[in-house]
Amino acid sequence: MVNHFTMLSMMRHQESSKNREQISEALQEIVETTNGRFYRKGEVIYQPGDLDDRVYYIADGKVKLAYLDESGRKLTLAILGVGEIFGEMVLVGSRRREHLAQVLQDAVIHPIERDRFVYMLERKPWLALEIIQLFGKRARDLEQKLEDLVFKDITTRLSRQLLRLIEEHGQDTPEGRQINFKITHKELADLIGSARENTTSALNRLAREGILDKKRYYIIVKDEERLKEKSGV
Amino acid sequence: MVNHFTMLSMMRHQESSKNREQISEALQEIVETTNGRFYRKGEVIYQPGDLDDRVYYIADGKVKLAYLDESGRKLTLAILGVGEIFGEMVLVGSRRREHLAQVLQDAVIHPIERDRFVYMLERKPWLALEIIQLFGKRARDLEQKLEDLVFKDITTRLSRQLLRLIEEHGQDTPEGRQINFKITHKELADLIGSARENTTSALNRLAREGILDKKRYYIIVKDEERLKEKSGV
Repeated sequence: MVNHFTMLSMMRHQESSKNREQISEALQEIVETTNGRFYRKGEVIYQPGDLDDRVYYIADGKVKLAYLDESGRKLTLAILGVGEIFGEMVLVGSRRREHLAQVLQDAVIHPIERDRFVYMLERKPWLALEIIQLFGKRARDLEQKLEDLVFKDITTRLSRQLLRLIEEHGQDTPEGRQINFKITHKELADLIGSARENTTSALNRLAREGILDKKRYYIIVKDEERLKEKSGV
Repeated sequence: MVNHFTMLSMMRHQESSKNREQISEALQEIVETTNGRFYRKGEVIYQPGDLDDRVYYIADGKVKLAYLDESGRKLTLAILGVGEIFGEMVLVGSRRREHLAQVLQDAVIHPIERDRFVYMLERKPWLALEIIQLFGKRARDLEQKLEDLVFKDITTRLSRQLLRLIEEHGQDTPEGRQINFKITHKELADLIGSARENTTSALNRLAREGILDKKRYYIIVKDEERLKEKSGV
């Protein structure tokens, strides 16, 4: 069992870290004790209605979780990267999937049977704590999305979403901070709960003002300070 | 350490239980080893901007978590009851509160220092698992709220919200299932991210159709089947 002070200092360390890739150290054991599978971009891991008893760990790549309504409209709930876990609703007793999980960038994913996962959690308190933190972060993202939808206009929502994306999935380039995977206007629209056309207009406005640059499905934020102003921070 | 099969069977038992009050058995130890404090209805436990290092356990009563925007508009994120935990964002490293936590019904609440809570989690794997399940449920509620906001009209949102309320906070009466605490139209409006006026109109429509009854701040669902139809289930 990990020493109490080790765990606390680990948590404190994490607070100062903004990079999701770094907080997954304690999850490494999952990678070492379960089997990963390669998934190609676009591949569907599960979709609404599927019966599926597994929790998934992302060892590499990116995965999109989305809600689809009956008429086919989509709301993207989260974009997850290395060290993150999804499908955890089986722990709460839902074996039938309510969402779509789709690979956004070629990925290596470890499917873990629910019972096995519970067994691991029971034996590794620090793993449970790590999971609690992951879910806490996920809940915070969802809350922010909700608040944005109720209170913010499209430009503000888009600016806030772009800031979250470059924080969680960003890489530095000479021109600015770039979202490190290809993303379409439709995918951005699905993330902020808006129509594609309105999202494109807002993106174009931000580009004209020199705040961002769009290059073949990649978005580079050239002026983070002004983006923050737009986001109302 | 709890036996693996005990824990799994405990989780399976929980799946079949719909009543939140029942799933808190494993949390009883918190009640026994920490001190509770009485809070009167309306009392603010914390508000946005507060520095606060504690996690809170509800031993009795109800608590509302809400987001307030700068202009004072409110979005209620959750209504929590016995056996639930809030303020858990300190586990993710946010010591500054982003939400309002306010007592909705006279309550006994156990504030637990973050470090102590982590210490308990580390020593009680089943407690950690319980917390993971609580957060999973919370996340599912938030996701549903998001989906409702993006895709559903006010009557549908209100119907879905009322169904959730009678499921989680309901009690049977001769006339139907009643939400077991007083709730104003404004509070319902804050829960579904809508204006008070529109919420009142939708409530009146449902009352005229004989689906529900409003009695001095109490709402009784008289025809759950038809409410489900309204909710699109």
